Parts: sequence; structure tokens; C-alpha cells
Amino acid sequence: MIADNSAPTTREQCVALDRQDVLRPFRDEFALPAGVIYLDGNSLGARPRAAAARAAQVVELEWGEGLIRSWNTAGWFDLPRRLGNLLAPLIGAGPHEVVVTDTTSVNLFKVLAAALRVQGARAPARRVIVSERSNFPTDLYIAQGLADLLQQGYTLRLVDSPAGIDDAVRDDTAVLMLTHVNYKTGEMLDMTALTALAHERGALTVWDLAHSAGAVPVALRDAGADYAVGCTYKYLNGGPGAPAFLWVSPSLRDDFSQPLSGWWGHAAPFAMEPGYRPHAGVARFLCGTQPITSIAMVECGLAMFARADMAAVRAKSLALTDLFIALVETRCAGHPLELVTPREHHRRGSQVSLYHPDGYGIVQALIERGVIGDYREPGIARFGFTPLYTGYADVWDAVEILRDVLDSGCHREARFQIRGAVT
Amino acid sequence: MIADNSAPTTREQCVALDRQDVLRPFRDEFALPAGVIYLDGNSLGARPRAAAARAAQVVELEWGEGLIRSWNTAGWFDLPRRLGNLLAPLIGAGPHEVVVTDTTSVNLFKVLAAALRVQGARAPARRVIVSERSNFPTDLYIAQGLADLLQQGYTLRLVDSPAGIDDAVRDDTAVLMLTHVNYKTGEMLDMTALTALAHERGALTVWDLAHSAGAVPVALRDAGADYAVGCTYKYLNGGPGAPAFLWVSPSLRDDFSQPLSGWWGHAAPFAMEPGYRPHAGVARFLCGTQPITSIAMVECGLAMFARADMAAVRAKSLALTDLFIALVETRCAGHPLELVTPREHHRRGSQVSLYHPDGYGIVQALIERGVIGDYREPGIARFGFTPLYTGYADVWDAVEILRDVLDSGCHREARFQIRGAVT
Repeated sequence: MIADNSAPTTREQCVALDRQDVLRPFRDEFALPAGVIYLDGNSLGARPRAAAARAAQVVELEWGEGLIRSWNTAGWFDLPRRLGNLLAPLIGAGPHEVVVTDTTSVNLFKVLAAALRVQGARAPARRVIVSERSNFPTDLYIAQGLADLLQQGYTLRLVDSPAGIDDAVRDDTAVLMLTHVNYKTGEMLDMTALTALAHERGALTVWDLAHSAGAVPVALRDAGADYAVGCTYKYLNGGPGAPAFLWVSPSLRDDFSQPLSGWWGHAAPFAMEPGYRPHAGVARFLCGTQPITSIAMVECGLAMFARADMAAVRAKSLALTDLFIALVETRCAGHPLELVTPREHHRRGSQVSLYHPDGYGIVQALIERGVIGDYREPGIARFGFTPLYTGYADVWDAVEILRDVLDSGCHREARFQIRGAVT
Repeated sequence: MIADNSAPTTREQCVALDRQDVLRPFRDEFALPAGVIYLDGNSLGARPRAAAARAAQVVELEWGEGLIRSWNTAGWFDLPRRLGNLLAPLIGAGPHEVVVTDTTSVNLFKVLAAALRVQGARAPARRVIVSERSNFPTDLYIAQGLADLLQQGYTLRLVDSPAGIDDAVRDDTAVLMLTHVNYKTGEMLDMTALTALAHERGALTVWDLAHSAGAVPVALRDAGADYAVGCTYKYLNGGPGAPAFLWVSPSLRDDFSQPLSGWWGHAAPFAMEPGYRPHAGVARFLCGTQPITSIAMVECGLAMFARADMAAVRAKSLALTDLFIALVETRCAGHPLELVTPREHHRRGSQVSLYHPDGYGIVQALIERGVIGDYREPGIARFGFTPLYTGYADVWDAVEILRDVLDSGCHREARFQIRGAVT
């Protein structure tokens, strides 16, 4: 491992970088606990200060005072589409192409089912869903659940690394289902090239943007992608378990209705007709009644991104991850740490994963000392870097604490147990 | 229509009944807006005062301060099962048989799919789902969506009234899917008899308890039911769009995994295995990450029901609806109102629906005067009665305002537009 020579080599240089940082003012808009360096915004984003007032508004005024009237007067009915429009620019989508609703798992089921139906009409022999074995597990579970439900030869083909995708997408392949930035390694795939590869072979693409939206620039339309889902509670700071999002290419979205055909996706949701008629456009991917308090808070994070320059976010993300890698390699030299995340910028998301035989103990020891990252089997300490509220001095301090932990040997004492953070 | 002679005939008698009401203290635990008589708790329950503090706790402390650690330290991971255990006694279920999660529509998809799989193994020729045409539309949409996805001859057979069920459940029937209390008419079905009828004919039952849980006594186990779903934001006062619930008979729940097989239903959710292994028991019906702020508030309503005697709730519900019917029939005599809801107690839920040619205008005029009910096509004014926060004097006052509206003729001026409350 070779350090990047352009990275700061003193804490003072880091403080100076923070002072010059155009994104620094956003930090004050977050409520961060004292004494914590939070490097787990890739699992659960920090709380925008505005979220507390928004939750109180929903609970006390909209629910408590407005009661049922708030469906109209407080705009509850429009939330999934209005928030979708706010989110769209962050993923290279147009207006009226995105909805915020349900969970990533449920949305993945909807778009996978829709994609298989499109293929069922176009090329019914295509019954294979190709994905990576290292994809986020719930994505694989959902694909398995759908294939098991459909039977009729639908199956999942998993490759061991992105290099295997080329060989795996064949004339039997209906869908290439990938996560853009891998949750464990932080590796970012080339959406444009892989979408083109899939299309050349007659397959459709489903992209999971859980670790991409708000973390790296995403250009769904420019990449020619077909379907995408993603998460609002990681880099978008929507709140714990906040509803997810879903995008469908305008060229595909009116082709079929998805099977979770609930009232919110009906062409006339208040007419109470006994027969389902899908709404035009992406609204047909809505299903049941959404958790209003949780979904309303999604706006607080999106409102910040509307004022942030995504190019500046990406530049700072790369600078922070470069700095972290460089400092780990210089300050923690001699310890058996291995960089899991790709070093090349174009292959790196907004996280750094390090392998260490005692990875679990290291993460526990860091958390005890106020540096919150998380652990993923086997041996991977995972650190997310969120440019809106993480600074260069935070990175310096985190690495110094990591060095202290490693030098002290206290990480060897942690008892291993699998239980913990999500995603 | 003949009035019930035992009902109060003066406001003073109503006030006296409120004074004697053992459930009256619960009213103070709700935050109700001034100047409003809220008869729409069957659509969105009123706000427990405790919900505001609970939301603030989740947002400010658990999210803001605890961050990712709250999955364990604040018990987020256990919420669906813990809340399910609190809810279970209200629907005649045992411990570890209920989960609170997702939406009613999504949960219905899960249990219908599971029921069809059970039948697919037992009696594969059974491919018909029987339901009522007047069932809540989203239930029919979900069944249609599942049947369309499965193809292979799966279809929906709708009957025009409960009387048609006997004829419709045949040797081709996989599932009898019914809503226990009809959202529009308030008619309650005989769960025990209809479950026995279905079982005699080889069909499984799926019950939607959206208008039953917290409204009427429900005895799923005693009735021998197979699957049930329902809503927490109506009579259970869980908050707008709060996650729904799901119950599976212990004899069936380990038979198959449901197709929305997300990480939260995995046997080892944090082991991140690429293959899905369903959790034992009802937990396999969990799917993706839940909206924590919204789901956490469900506890505030359930905590009240844990202290309320459900027999007292039912007795007061019947007394309130009897009173409403009697007062409408005496005080509003001469106006063309027709009682849609069954008069017999054993066939009545906790609402009263009235037909009037100008039903829409009546509901709008009432809302303008602070009496909140809602409208359902065609011509139905719908009024829900929630014994924990609605009193006898409220009923008296609501009927007097209804009489004023009808006598003044102002209800004829409202411009009709379909848009409004949900469910």
C-alpha cells in the first residue's frame, strides 16, 4: 500500500482544509452527539436539526389537529411523488420519474417483477436474474422469493465478482440486478458500461442505489438504465427506516403494472372501484398507505441536498476517503490492515473498508472511544464518509484513535457476536 | 326505521351517561382539537397525547444521539415483534403470533401468497380466491395483482353480498378472503361460521381486520382462522400510515416462506448470508427495514388498550351507535336518510353509515361545522365511533348539527369531487 502524497500529513493541515471547505456550513444543520466521530452515515445518516421540528409538526399539528383532513390540507397524499421529485436530480432522473415509498426490499420486488413481465412479453425464454454473490443479501433474498413464487424456471445466477458478469449475462438472462456501490467493499460499478452490456445481450437492468444516492453522482437516464431502487436513510439522512425510493425508465413504466397493486397506485384511488386500473407513470409503483411521520422527515435531508453542489460533495468524499486511506497507511503502518475498497476514484463509493483479522474487536474498541463505524463479516471494519457533516480533522482524529486501539492491543479482547447495525 | 326506546332522549341524559362511563378517563389521554366532534377514527384514529413525546424521543434521542447504536440500545430491531405481542390480545392471538410491519396491502400480499402455496402443495387444483365485490378495494387489487403475477389459472371470484359466499366457495377455491367489518357499510361478518364453511370446503381463510382491531372483539384462534392482516392507524390510534399487522395461525406459519423474503425475516439477519433461510414462526413474514419513528408511536395506542376492558369498549361502541341511530331516526325524521349499517348488534361494527342522495354535501357541511365524518360513494355518510375518546354528549351534539344541516338545506350546495380521506 502506497500513501497518496498530496494528502495532509498534520492535524493543522486538516483543520485548515475544514476552514476552506465550501460544504462546512452544512455541518451546523445536523444534530451530532458530543464526543462522537460518526463514520456510519452509510448505514444510518445523522439527523438534520430540522427533522425534530418536522416530526413535531406532523404529530402535533397535522395528525393531532388536522386529523383526517391532513390527507389534503397537509399534502400527505402528494408526499411520495413530491419527495420523488426532490430526489430525482440526485440520481440523474427527471421530474415525475421517482417515488418515495415502502422499503428498498419491497420496491425491489416491484421492479424485478415488472422487469420479468416486460421480458415475459418480449423474450419469454429469458428467465434468469444475474447478480453478484456479494450483493446486499436482502436483494438476493427478494430475487429468490420472486423466483420461487413464479416457479416456471425462473432462477438466480450469482457471480463471484464483477469480472464474472460478462460471462454470466447470456441469452437466457432476463435481468441484470446489481448494487451500484457494494455495501461491504465500497466498490462502485460502471453503471453505463454494465447497462450497455446487459442491453447488448437483451437483458434489462435493475440498480440498487442504497449506497449511491447522496454519496456519489448517479446518472440513471444518461446511463440508459431501466429500473432503480434505493434508500433514503443512509447518505440522504431521511431518518431511521425512512421509506425508500424507486425509479423506472419512462420508456418502460407504462408497460405493465407491478404486482403489489395497492390503492395508492390506482388511476382513481378515491373512486373505490373494485377493479385495479394502474395510474399512469411511476405512480403505479405505489402500493399501500405510507408512514407519514417517517416519510415527511425525508424532506429535511433532501432540502439540504437541493442546496449542495453534488460535484463538491463527490470531490470532498474522495478527498476524505483518500485522506483516511493515506493516514491509515502511514500512521497505522505495521498493523495487519488491508485496504478492501478500490483505490481508483472511479471504482470507489463514499466508504472505506479495511480488513483486519480482529476487525470485529477493532470496531467495538473504536465505538467505545467515540468513533462509530461498523463491522461486516469476515473481518471488515467499514467506515462511511459523509461530506455534509464529516470534516478532515474528524478523519485525522479517527485515525489517531484507530492507531491507539491497534497499538494498545485492546481490540483483541472483544468477544465476537453477530448482531448490530443494519445494511 | 324504528327507534330503540332505551336510548337517551335528552342531552342531559347523555351527559349523565358520560359521567358514569368507565372509559371516560381515556379521553383525557388523547389530544383532540377544540371545537371538533371526531367521528372518523375508523379512518385515522386520534392522537394519544403520549405520541408526541414518543416521536421526540425517537427523533432527538434515539436517532440524533444514539444513531446506529439504537438498533440495539433502543430496541428498534425488536419493535415489530414486541408491538405484535402487545396487539395480540386484541385479536384473540397468542404471544409470538403477530408482527407489526409494512402496510396492510403488502401484508395481504404476503399471507395470500403463503396461503396459495399451502394449497398448491395440498390441493393444486384450487386456484380461486373468493371475496366480496364490496371488500375494501385495495384488498381486491392486491389479490388481482398476485393472481396476475402467478397466472397458471389463478383468479378472483367476487360475490355481490355475504349471502353469496356459501355458493361461491367450491372445490376450486383456495382461499376465502374477507374483511371482517366492511369499510363502507359497517357490517360485521361471522368469522367463526365463515371460517368453518371455508374449511369444510377445503379453503383457507384470510381476514382483514382493518375495521375490527380495537373496534370489536376478535377471536382469531377461537374462530380457527388461518391468516389475518390489519391496520394500526384506525381504531388503534397508531398515527397516520403507521405500519400494519399480520397474524398467521401457528399451525401454518412454518409451512412456507412468503415471497417478500427480505432481511428482517431471515433466520440470521445479521449474518449476511447470500441465501435466504426463513426465521422460525411469524418473524418470517417480516421483510425490509421499518420506518422507526412511525412504528414506535404504535405503542402509545396499544398501551391504552392494554388498560382498557375490550368488553367495555364493545358495550360502549354498541351504546354509542344505538344512540346515534335512534337520535337520527327521531331528530332527523322526515329527511331521506337510510340506515346502511345493520341494526342487529352481532352484525354491526363500530360505525354507522347513512345513505342520503346528497350524502357528499352533508359530510362537507358537517365538516365545516366541526363534525368530522367521511363520505363514500354512492351517497354514504360514514361515522365511526371510538369509545376511548367519543362520548354520549358528542353523539347528541353531532346529530343536532346534522339536523341543522338537513333543515337548512345547505348540504345541497356542496360541489361534488371525489378526493378525500383514506380507507
